[in-house]
Amino acid sequence: MAIPTQMHALLLKGDGYASTRSPSNLEAMQPYVEYGSIEVPAPKGKQVLIKVSRASINPSDVMFVKGLYGQPRMQGRPAGFEGVGTVVAAGEEPVAQGLMGKRIAFATGLSNWGAWAEYAIADAPGCIPLVDGVRDEDGAAMIVNPLTALAMFGIVKDEGEKAFIMTAGASQLSKLTMNVAREEGFRPIAIVRRDDQLKLVEEAGAAYALNAESPEFRHRLREIIKAEQPRIFLDAVTGPLATTIFHEMPRRSRWIVYGRLDQETTAIREPGQLIFMSKVVEGFWLPEWMRKSPERRVEAVMAAQKRFADGRWKTDVTAVVPLAEAMARVPQELAKPNGKVFIAP
Amino acid sequence: MAIPTQMHALLLKGDGYASTRSPSNLEAMQPYVEYGSIEVPAPKGKQVLIKVSRASINPSDVMFVKGLYGQPRMQGRPAGFEGVGTVVAAGEEPVAQGLMGKRIAFATGLSNWGAWAEYAIADAPGCIPLVDGVRDEDGAAMIVNPLTALAMFGIVKDEGEKAFIMTAGASQLSKLTMNVAREEGFRPIAIVRRDDQLKLVEEAGAAYALNAESPEFRHRLREIIKAEQPRIFLDAVTGPLATTIFHEMPRRSRWIVYGRLDQETTAIREPGQLIFMSKVVEGFWLPEWMRKSPERRVEAVMAAQKRFADGRWKTDVTAVVPLAEAMARVPQELAKPNGKVFIAP
Repeated sequence: MAIPTQMHALLLKGDGYASTRSPSNLEAMQPYVEYGSIEVPAPKGKQVLIKVSRASINPSDVMFVKGLYGQPRMQGRPAGFEGVGTVVAAGEEPVAQGLMGKRIAFATGLSNWGAWAEYAIADAPGCIPLVDGVRDEDGAAMIVNPLTALAMFGIVKDEGEKAFIMTAGASQLSKLTMNVAREEGFRPIAIVRRDDQLKLVEEAGAAYALNAESPEFRHRLREIIKAEQPRIFLDAVTGPLATTIFHEMPRRSRWIVYGRLDQETTAIREPGQLIFMSKVVEGFWLPEWMRKSPERRVEAVMAAQKRFADGRWKTDVTAVVPLAEAMARVPQELAKPNGKVFIAP
Repeated sequence: MAIPTQMHALLLKGDGYASTRSPSNLEAMQPYVEYGSIEVPAPKGKQVLIKVSRASINPSDVMFVKGLYGQPRMQGRPAGFEGVGTVVAAGEEPVAQGLMGKRIAFATGLSNWGAWAEYAIADAPGCIPLVDGVRDEDGAAMIVNPLTALAMFGIVKDEGEKAFIMTAGASQLSKLTMNVAREEGFRPIAIVRRDDQLKLVEEAGAAYALNAESPEFRHRLREIIKAEQPRIFLDAVTGPLATTIFHEMPRRSRWIVYGRLDQETTAIREPGQLIFMSKVVEGFWLPEWMRKSPERRVEAVMAAQKRFADGRWKTDVTAVVPLAEAMARVPQELAKPNGKVFIAP
């Protein structure tokens, strides 16, 4: 397979971090990326070059292109943290050479050559060779959400209480987490923002589904917390909703922030709870977890692939958008609820 | 020594918790306690009855009488968490009997019979028999502040970085902590609110003293943090000042809240720091630390007494107020900076 010297990609317009906040949805592509042409990169060392067949659009990608993610942008380079494709070139190290010709799920990590492109660069040790039963759409969404779901559910299991709380309950990540949790006899308390998501999250494994916009929300939350004593709060939202939930939780509760969909102020309503109730506020970030728990990472990679292959997990697809149409179509597709949007280069 | 049936005490007027917030200073005694007469309690089991010679007034006492501390008030019972005195009666257990006649430092804990009284009840295992070299004023302030100082400095030592940050830098607690820290080659960064406290905290052991009200505060804070990389933040204040300090701190920093002098909103300015920088917000409470670290507690009790006996630690005394004059005089004495106020029954 001949590798061209130039390729099409969605290139970052901003550099470093944004100086101002903006909402977590992607209102338009133009301010953040442009469809353009760039040299195909050459993999070095442990890197591989992947011919991308599907690239994911995750909430973290949206935050990243806006300059609101905890990693700096490199202007002019392709965006996109995750995808699936075939390895067409490899660096000199055996771990990279061994992937030549294979179909893999990949995360671009800190390579600065993202997945929203015809070709992408990834570190070979983080790539997952795929078995035939795994669809491209599942492979393209096999790392960020699935490993985060398994890692965070691991925290719930280590804590011991069967019930735990999740915001953004209708997200792909929450659905994966609840699916595993239900299977192992745990009771997820899923918080959503719309009534039409209640049934969806219950089907996905929620023991309780609550609409945070409902007038009975706080009352029901209190009752459920009193009955279930959840100590882990997996929070993708922050802001006033998360503040309220954490405030209602019992002694020794851990508020684990992994996303920030709400840009409003995040307060600790009663700091005395940290003192007298031993409550803790902390964060979760997949790359840090992978660094600290290499053995759990291997376990999670195998578990994730098995779940997609045997059908227990399945990525809900809202749309697969050709790369050349992404500028025009991605925002409207992303605005549709409950599924993932992919880019097909 | 004959024990009377009735005694004078400062009795709690409120019950349970306050329903509204109020400042952390004691603007007057009348809304919270009254000088009255009550039956002398009888010690049971492991309890001892102490004839109080000096009782402390700690910031936690002020919060408690106001109903803002994390323990409920019991209306009509004496306030006061800490003091020094002589054991005049004991419960039937040997640990209590063994203290009969001894001069001890005590903390009233959850006994509901506080130290702002002629007689107080305490659990014998938490009492510290005093050697002769220890003054009453040091004995009356030997548990809450000294053990908290040693426990929190232990957290600093475990973390490893030589520099750490303290708010309320001119408090008795901070001064004790800085004294130990300097002795062991650590570099406390003390935050105060007034220029006249800068020299005082430097003498007490601060490697850096900063006035949070100064226009250069944030700039200097940044420079010092950059040079020293402090990872532990011992915070008695919360609110906007603490929010700013935590925001400026490096990766893996721990914001350890042990007091709440500022009642304003406590925000996490950038929740992304929890995710991407592994920062954590937690609390410290001495009774919880003692419960979890019994061996360290014994060590700290011995170290504290040794430090007072050999003069490395000394309690700065603002005033010793007779119990009968406490209602009128305590607020104005407490308003004076940099020393402790004691009640003498």
